[in-house]
Amino acid sequence: MIRDDFKAIYRNDPAARGLEPILYAGLHAIFWQRLAHRLYKWELRFIARLISQLTRFFTGIEIHPGATLGKGLFIDHGMGLVVGETTEIGENCVLFHNVTLGGTGKHAGKRHPTLGNNVLVGTGAIILGPVNIGNNVYIGANTFIYMCDVPDNATVVGTPGRIVRLDGRAVDLPLPRTVHSTE
Amino acid sequence: MIRDDFKAIYRNDPAARGLEPILYAGLHAIFWQRLAHRLYKWELRFIARLISQLTRFFTGIEIHPGATLGKGLFIDHGMGLVVGETTEIGENCVLFHNVTLGGTGKHAGKRHPTLGNNVLVGTGAIILGPVNIGNNVYIGANTFIYMCDVPDNATVVGTPGRIVRLDGRAVDLPLPRTVHSTE
Amino acid sequence: MIRDDFKAIYRNDPAARGLEPILYAGLHAIFWQRLAHRLYKWELRFIARLISQLTRFFTGIEIHPGATLGKGLFIDHGMGLVVGETTEIGENCVLFHNVTLGGTGKHAGKRHPTLGNNVLVGTGAIILGPVNIGNNVYIGANTFIYMCDVPDNATVVGTPGRIVRLDGRAVDLPLPRTVHSTE
Repeated sequence: MIRDDFKAIYRNDPAARGLEPILYAGLHAIFWQRLAHRLYKWELRFIARLISQLTRFFTGIEIHPGATLGKGLFIDHGMGLVVGETTEIGENCVLFHNVTLGGTGKHAGKRHPTLGNNVLVGTGAIILGPVNIGNNVYIGANTFIYMCDVPDNATVVGTPGRIVRLDGRAVDLPLPRTVHSTE
Repeated sequence: MIRDDFKAIYRNDPAARGLEPILYAGLHAIFWQRLAHRLYKWELRFIARLISQLTRFFTGIEIHPGATLGKGLFIDHGMGLVVGETTEIGENCVLFHNVTLGGTGKHAGKRHPTLGNNVLVGTGAIILGPVNIGNNVYIGANTFIYMCDVPDNATVVGTPGRIVRLDGRAVDLPLPRTVHSTE
Repeated sequence: MIRDDFKAIYRNDPAARGLEPILYAGLHAIFWQRLAHRLYKWELRFIARLISQLTRFFTGIEIHPGATLGKGLFIDHGMGLVVGETTEIGENCVLFHNVTLGGTGKHAGKRHPTLGNNVLVGTGAIILGPVNIGNNVYIGANTFIYMCDVPDNATVVGTPGRIVRLDGRAVDLPLPRTVHSTE
């Protein structure tokens, strides 16, 4: 797992040289979250949360121990990143600083986003609610998505987010609204 | 005071279980700011500011000692939150991470926002200037408000912020411009 | 250099009184980056990067050691600020918290912005790519600029950023697209 996370840095960051990635706060945050997630599943919730809060102090990155992170995840810079308890992230995703994968405050149970594989979420983007983000999705910096799904192979930008590229073609489409069972 | 802040966490956060809230950086930041605010009023400004900067280091939350915080305040996540010197916050408010209650750089004396009771300010929202935010106001994530007031019972979203809900009815209104004596 | 940075705080921040600026995280971050930048130029890249990451831990401010900072720079609050490796910043600039001077992921070599003199970049503004920002430029809070240049004496706001003031007159113009040799 750690090796995949390490490789993900070299694959994505042109500023990563030599051993520099061992200094990256994003790598540390992912390492400790994977440990906290195991404790969380063993119902050791307070210790899991303690690790999560200590990691937040050391890295500026706050990922709830309940979140499920896929392999090959790269967090670039990461300061201000917040990932909620019921978030699920696929493989080979990239998250930048100040990204929020959060809740709406109006849902119970599954409250946070699900991301597919090869998803990039740009700086300051905010995704709220139990929404589904497809595979090979690019979400631009400062994009805002609230209770909307994103199809595969889409590029989404703006506030509120709109699809500006789909399956390699330029488009301009609104996002489909998420239907959620406990709303 | 601390008990009210503690209760505010359980009231607002579905992820708060058992004793977990004692780990919350937002709770720590509010506790130390209330102490720094007392020192600030006794004109012990340097010590007050020192506490404020140490709190910023430990929590990622920067609240100027001069700010007046009402009871039952809940800061969720909190990283990147900045609250200016002459800010006033009413009772039972909720502030998320990366919220800025700041100045415009063009005003003297009262330079920062005043929030009523039961105000929620979403992730990344920026409110600048000596503006008045009413009671029971909901300000969406990433909303930008510059020298504009918000009436009671309003929901505001967008850049620049517009009223999309007022007294329970869907509307689409611009915000009234703030009139300020020292402008 | 340090004296200029110190003076820049008093010039820009109405809340700075007495010796308070010695507590400012922005001042610390600039001091350590200037040192790290020297080591970076001597090809001591790992040590430079280590200083940069330690500074990020202590201040919440992440400036790559490769970035060139002009004199009289003021970083206000600073939490979440990210400045990329090939960024160049002129004299007497002001950067607020959560500002990103970053790359697009699509360029090689010079990948980050160049700022002129007397440039102010507001809270949460994101500028991506090897773009040129002129002199005496004001970039509003939460503004988003992607591969576009900004002329001298301009005020830019919005997502995407538009020129709303130029040479002292109110206008409404799109930003000219950046032409880059390695695109």
